[in-house]
Amino acid sequence: MSFRIEKDTMGEVKVPADKLWGAQTERSRNNFKIGPAASMPLEVVYGFAYLKKAAAFTNCELGVLPIEKRDLIAQVCDEILEGKHDNQFPLVIWQTGSGTQSNMNVNEVIANRAHQLAGKVIGEGEKTIQPNDDVNKSQSSNDTFPTGMHIAAYKKVVEVTIPGVKKLRDTLKKKSEAFKDVVKIGRTHLMDATPLTLGQEISGYVAQLDHGIKALENTLPHLSELALGGTAVGTGLNTPKGYDKRVAEYIAKFTNLPFITAPNKFEALAAHDALVETHGALKQLAVSLNKIANDIRMMASGPRSGIGEIIIPANEPGSSIMPGKVNPTQCEAMTMVCAQVIGNDVTVSVGGTQGHYELNVFKPVMAANVLQSAQLIGDACISFDVNCAVGIEPNYATIKELLNNSLMLVTALNTKIGYYKAAEIANTAHKNGTTLKEEAINLGYVTAEEYDAWVKPEDMVGSMK
Amino acid sequence: MSFRIEKDTMGEVKVPADKLWGAQTERSRNNFKIGPAASMPLEVVYGFAYLKKAAAFTNCELGVLPIEKRDLIAQVCDEILEGKHDNQFPLVIWQTGSGTQSNMNVNEVIANRAHQLAGKVIGEGEKTIQPNDDVNKSQSSNDTFPTGMHIAAYKKVVEVTIPGVKKLRDTLKKKSEAFKDVVKIGRTHLMDATPLTLGQEISGYVAQLDHGIKALENTLPHLSELALGGTAVGTGLNTPKGYDKRVAEYIAKFTNLPFITAPNKFEALAAHDALVETHGALKQLAVSLNKIANDIRMMASGPRSGIGEIIIPANEPGSSIMPGKVNPTQCEAMTMVCAQVIGNDVTVSVGGTQGHYELNVFKPVMAANVLQSAQLIGDACISFDVNCAVGIEPNYATIKELLNNSLMLVTALNTKIGYYKAAEIANTAHKNGTTLKEEAINLGYVTAEEYDAWVKPEDMVGSMK
Amino acid sequence: MSFRIEKDTMGEVKVPADKLWGAQTERSRNNFKIGPAASMPLEVVYGFAYLKKAAAFTNCELGVLPIEKRDLIAQVCDEILEGKHDNQFPLVIWQTGSGTQSNMNVNEVIANRAHQLAGKVIGEGEKTIQPNDDVNKSQSSNDTFPTGMHIAAYKKVVEVTIPGVKKLRDTLKKKSEAFKDVVKIGRTHLMDATPLTLGQEISGYVAQLDHGIKALENTLPHLSELALGGTAVGTGLNTPKGYDKRVAEYIAKFTNLPFITAPNKFEALAAHDALVETHGALKQLAVSLNKIANDIRMMASGPRSGIGEIIIPANEPGSSIMPGKVNPTQCEAMTMVCAQVIGNDVTVSVGGTQGHYELNVFKPVMAANVLQSAQLIGDACISFDVNCAVGIEPNYATIKELLNNSLMLVTALNTKIGYYKAAEIANTAHKNGTTLKEEAINLGYVTAEEYDAWVKPEDMVGSMK
Amino acid sequence: MSFRIEKDTMGEVKVPADKLWGAQTERSRNNFKIGPAASMPLEVVYGFAYLKKAAAFTNCELGVLPIEKRDLIAQVCDEILEGKHDNQFPLVIWQTGSGTQSNMNVNEVIANRAHQLAGKVIGEGEKTIQPNDDVNKSQSSNDTFPTGMHIAAYKKVVEVTIPGVKKLRDTLKKKSEAFKDVVKIGRTHLMDATPLTLGQEISGYVAQLDHGIKALENTLPHLSELALGGTAVGTGLNTPKGYDKRVAEYIAKFTNLPFITAPNKFEALAAHDALVETHGALKQLAVSLNKIANDIRMMASGPRSGIGEIIIPANEPGSSIMPGKVNPTQCEAMTMVCAQVIGNDVTVSVGGTQGHYELNVFKPVMAANVLQSAQLIGDACISFDVNCAVGIEPNYATIKELLNNSLMLVTALNTKIGYYKAAEIANTAHKNGTTLKEEAINLGYVTAEEYDAWVKPEDMVGSMK
Repeated sequence: MSFRIEKDTMGEVKVPADKLWGAQTERSRNNFKIGPAASMPLEVVYGFAYLKKAAAFTNCELGVLPIEKRDLIAQVCDEILEGKHDNQFPLVIWQTGSGTQSNMNVNEVIANRAHQLAGKVIGEGEKTIQPNDDVNKSQSSNDTFPTGMHIAAYKKVVEVTIPGVKKLRDTLKKKSEAFKDVVKIGRTHLMDATPLTLGQEISGYVAQLDHGIKALENTLPHLSELALGGTAVGTGLNTPKGYDKRVAEYIAKFTNLPFITAPNKFEALAAHDALVETHGALKQLAVSLNKIANDIRMMASGPRSGIGEIIIPANEPGSSIMPGKVNPTQCEAMTMVCAQVIGNDVTVSVGGTQGHYELNVFKPVMAANVLQSAQLIGDACISFDVNCAVGIEPNYATIKELLNNSLMLVTALNTKIGYYKAAEIANTAHKNGTTLKEEAINLGYVTAEEYDAWVKPEDMVGSMK
Repeated sequence: MSFRIEKDTMGEVKVPADKLWGAQTERSRNNFKIGPAASMPLEVVYGFAYLKKAAAFTNCELGVLPIEKRDLIAQVCDEILEGKHDNQFPLVIWQTGSGTQSNMNVNEVIANRAHQLAGKVIGEGEKTIQPNDDVNKSQSSNDTFPTGMHIAAYKKVVEVTIPGVKKLRDTLKKKSEAFKDVVKIGRTHLMDATPLTLGQEISGYVAQLDHGIKALENTLPHLSELALGGTAVGTGLNTPKGYDKRVAEYIAKFTNLPFITAPNKFEALAAHDALVETHGALKQLAVSLNKIANDIRMMASGPRSGIGEIIIPANEPGSSIMPGKVNPTQCEAMTMVCAQVIGNDVTVSVGGTQGHYELNVFKPVMAANVLQSAQLIGDACISFDVNCAVGIEPNYATIKELLNNSLMLVTALNTKIGYYKAAEIANTAHKNGTTLKEEAINLGYVTAEEYDAWVKPEDMVGSMK
Repeated sequence: MSFRIEKDTMGEVKVPADKLWGAQTERSRNNFKIGPAASMPLEVVYGFAYLKKAAAFTNCELGVLPIEKRDLIAQVCDEILEGKHDNQFPLVIWQTGSGTQSNMNVNEVIANRAHQLAGKVIGEGEKTIQPNDDVNKSQSSNDTFPTGMHIAAYKKVVEVTIPGVKKLRDTLKKKSEAFKDVVKIGRTHLMDATPLTLGQEISGYVAQLDHGIKALENTLPHLSELALGGTAVGTGLNTPKGYDKRVAEYIAKFTNLPFITAPNKFEALAAHDALVETHGALKQLAVSLNKIANDIRMMASGPRSGIGEIIIPANEPGSSIMPGKVNPTQCEAMTMVCAQVIGNDVTVSVGGTQGHYELNVFKPVMAANVLQSAQLIGDACISFDVNCAVGIEPNYATIKELLNNSLMLVTALNTKIGYYKAAEIANTAHKNGTTLKEEAINLGYVTAEEYDAWVKPEDMVGSMK
Repeated sequence: MSFRIEKDTMGEVKVPADKLWGAQTERSRNNFKIGPAASMPLEVVYGFAYLKKAAAFTNCELGVLPIEKRDLIAQVCDEILEGKHDNQFPLVIWQTGSGTQSNMNVNEVIANRAHQLAGKVIGEGEKTIQPNDDVNKSQSSNDTFPTGMHIAAYKKVVEVTIPGVKKLRDTLKKKSEAFKDVVKIGRTHLMDATPLTLGQEISGYVAQLDHGIKALENTLPHLSELALGGTAVGTGLNTPKGYDKRVAEYIAKFTNLPFITAPNKFEALAAHDALVETHGALKQLAVSLNKIANDIRMMASGPRSGIGEIIIPANEPGSSIMPGKVNPTQCEAMTMVCAQVIGNDVTVSVGGTQGHYELNVFKPVMAANVLQSAQLIGDACISFDVNCAVGIEPNYATIKELLNNSLMLVTALNTKIGYYKAAEIANTAHKNGTTLKEEAINLGYVTAEEYDAWVKPEDMVGSMK
């Protein structure tokens, strides 16, 4: 491998010749060999690209950066956002907790690439664009990294999480309507209870996801607040007047998302409660999705010795010898995602508690966990939707059999023959392992015709919509 | 101890003669000897009292309960709410997960006490009021317990948590304004950084709490949805028409809080995402409060070998031999509360994931944890406010000394003598353990007058409000 | 209420006249109104009683305390351990994080009670025993509180947790043996699988608990290390030579448990990894118990529309109208306990991370959570054992029916007629909703006699013990 | 891209022509687009390679696999272990919870590669080795995946985690000895306390890590138990006699690690408490490391306005303008790792609670989290050791200054002039902001000579070793 020499204030560093990064990135690679390389999420890098471009435009507009430099910086940022430089960001999550080195990674790549775009060779001649003085102008790691992670998290939530959850929600809503008349046995404490319809059951899932989406959307205003303009400690030292509001406007314009400058920059650097808040809602969705996926696999269990009330799609060979063994693999993937998100929530909370004075130095780990959870929930919902939910069908025969066998239907006789006789029927049927109808007739309390007329499960599900 | 005999469908049970509860409560006492007695929060019992009264009024209004029974039930509910029967609820959290036995505990106490109010002796004659048929009319454990816990949690949040947090927030806001001109050294990575004011620093705490209060308030609409009217599985079987909306209106009236009937009763029984959502916001507040309390104890550390920038009230003897050793005990209590709340959040989430079909059977543990967290945060904020925050004062001498010693002020010279000379001054001062001013003059770059004119920390904190 | 005046170095305090505590306890009551009163676990107080007595004996033996004082102190400690002064310890968990005020509470109660035992009136005359100089001699809050909490936690684990878990384990072991020949359908992914015996299934639970008990016992050596002798910062300042080893020997003698002095006192004050370690094992047990309780309730589900393979005791009226509806209430209590313990583990971990320099100030919250988890697991195991596990019986009819219906038994034909024909049989039976035997004969691949000879589920469970 | 056709029992699938995997792997890729590709840890794949080879040897030895097939399978396994096929395992964690598809991925790759090794072209002619019948012989996903994950986790713990922690521990031990006479101020509650030596302080860290290593080692016996031989539900159906013990011996031989066959296979498939147990110990280490890293950054804080008692290496440019600003970046990376591990512990616990009947279907997420935590802790310890711990040096001047300024040293005068005079000296010095010595002389209680003779911090640290 060939190398070139890059310098920073500590001296010279050998950098792989084919890479755009500079001395500080290379130092970080060597000093933080923790876990797999390049674990810092690319989404954060893209967040940086938006903000570096916005800073260049704002600096230019406020008279502190020449237009030529602005345009070079913006051009590289656009290239980064097109994914052209994804392999230029080798750093890990487990670096300095302010993400300084990832900020410098972006600064260095932009400066070196701009040098190339200006027709020069990296490492030769004076840098066309300085990583610190130009790319990082009016900025500090301390306000850029939280800005980059807010951009990344906001985009992920609105582009991946919410659409994914909504897609699943819409499918469940359709199922809820399609099955609104499919009367089945209810279950409480895992024990037989009074009937409801399959549509009603699924409507509960829809309500859960509706509440979850709303809870997630409630967190977006906090997440839309950007630290940029606070610089080192939140005072905005070294920024031109009006910079913070204007740079947020540019970011809003470039991302087409409603970002604003944080009203309080001290909070925006020293605490990351916005990430805690957003992840709290992601965790709530995980709680809901776990319940839904768990119910579906229990209802699909069987084929002979389980509940078997619904049929889910067979996507993979279950067992080569066991036809009908359709494993609820999408439910399993989903509940594993939920377990991960519930754990990630603790990581984000622990990171959030530990800001010191003017800076929280758990930024990378908090950002990475929020992004992972947001991605996993969105992806898992799509996967679950496409490969499972859309294909859910009632197993009408089993539903009917379980319903008719149920002793719980005796409730319908209470108003006809009184509570005690009804209970006697149910008790006898339970003891003898017979049906309610058999024992009702047997005991002489009702005729077969009366039983059929009075014991109608479909009349027991109706008082709620 | 003397006993009387109470009966339920399983037979006779001996109950302490001086207690109002009945057979099912007594069975539960014997079957669940887990942890200390009476751990079921009284707040849940009070929630039941509101809903039992509301149900009696609704049942009466809809023609299924005589007015005399309504009034007897209501009278006992009022007595319960006045705290007259607190020792009649001996059950534990660790019972059936639907809270059925606590529902029955309330039903039994109301029925027996109503018997007394009717001038009769418990255990003698036919019950004036039946626990199941009258007190529990149009209800099921499955919809009453979640209703009771929503009432309890909502009240706790608006009566204890939010007022407590706001009180502390308001004190910090005042401190932030009072100290808005107290320039001090900033710190990032725990290392010296550019200056800011103590008021700015504290304003970050205020912003955190403002966001936290808003996040908590965002969860109240979900929490205001009541399950009552869903009965056993959410279909509302055995409730009169219009019951669910009307009973919620009565609860709203009696509590003077904006409760509504849950639009989807299936969700309201089978999932408790509303508690997950509310506790998520409580956890966010814990994250914020931990940061604030931690900062305050670091800033108050000393008296000689710590940071010592602020003075906090001395509430207890620190050490009998060590004057000035004021331990940050309120910070310690607060951060312990935060640790508890962060753990409770996991308990609530785990409970929330595990609903099965039509019923979540982690209701008591979820309710108890939400109530504990809501209480602890509210109480801890008041305690912290009264015994610490209101008394915080700057240690002006130390603040000034640390500020003036700081090498970070050299930043102010950049625009006057250039970056390299400024850096040389700082480097030399660091190496020699001297002050910037000494070395600036020594190196011949500025005069003493210029130094004093140019290096003004108060000019370095100004660009943000 | 009448009061007397007590004094400390900060001045006078009014204390309820009928209470034994002094000024510092009273200050703490007033300064920490957080959550219910007296939440500091009594077990910690009892731990203090052991160590105060041991310290008195050691101090006497090493010549720094007169024998008369030793005996007075010891006498009060014995009274405390007999539960005679339980209402003298009103402080809360949420106090100073070193537990200083609970240490002083014990010191004050011992001193005042000793005064009484010496025939004097509290508040009159010079104190017979000084709380600081005598009761607290050779001690500091910083080494007494962790000693008290180690004693409390160790005792709770060996007296409540382990016996409780073992009792349940032994019952399950017996059930495993009793049902070793009850062949039933296996289930993986909640789907039908090859058979095993109910005894084998339960043997897995026994293995889980055996591992859990071993994991918990593995943590006891760390927990047996006592901080006492480290005094304020771990150096043992102000302790007589040989004190630390001797005082641990006395504690071991008085408790009859193998306590030793911590080899490194700095760790013993500044970190509480021993509690983290012990709680980690409690959490592992919670994980195991959750699996076990969950399986049992699924297997007991029904009575008609669930799995119904086992019968569990009916301890309470399920529903007045629904005979056979035996709710798995012990499973629900158990899994709620598990959710609590899993959350408590996070609290203990978070507390454990936050020691600063020479002292961890999350002692009370860590101790309280360890004690709660240890108690709940022990109690819940006993409750589950007595009220559920001992009564578990197979539902032979259902087990046999589900087994014989299973398509999975076709596996037994593979070696007789080949994989493809076997699969064809299973496929056809699944499609037609018939039995394997019917289709095997129908397709002409085996005779009824051959089928019965070859398809024997009891031969499919045998290769493992 | 060109494709070939692969088949499974569900039909034909197009697979990229240059890949070794088959139909089931390709189906899984398409059905589980959740998060980044190939997230299933390679360590698990390597674990499979060991076990597939061991199974081939055992099957051959027990007469159910020809030696030629054994050797082909073994040859491919060796290639996999050499890293030659790392890009052949594209599946994600978020698949079926039994890891069936990763098992099949390995089976398919081995079969196709063996076909190549036999000189044939993939997709042409009959398969030399059948993925199911040969590679998977005497196995099931249900026992191979847990075996693979135990192998992976055990190796990671003993090859990465423990060596990493020990390296850091050994460095700290050396520092503890090197600084055993460096007397410094102690701090409790973040407040000045009696002195100790820097060596004593660091010895506490060593004790923490020693306990943590022991706790981790305590979990290895459970982790050494392998599920292999249990096949589908734990009964060992379809395995030759003696298979389970023998296959574990082969795995032990090939890995050179003390693996044994699990005494209870039902536990080994249905529960993964061994992973819960091991991760519990990893979490304990995270708790310890967080305390250590946090202390070190506080002690290194400054350079002017912090504590500044130790000097840590400067590895990166802090600020271009701020010499001496050495950010504690290794501490930050370490504490972020700790936050991740504490969250991962919850994920592993939640996954562990949710086994159903004969199978826990959270295997991939549990394995991935254990492996990540084990790797991160090991790596972070090495990084922290090399880039921080080895370079820690006392800042003697600051240590001495802070020590001598301390009012806590007055304790030494107690035995000479009495407690009250000593306290008066301390109080006066605190009030006047002077030194103890000044006021001691000033008040006329001691001479300068006496002061110097009596107040010797080095005599206050000595009673403990």
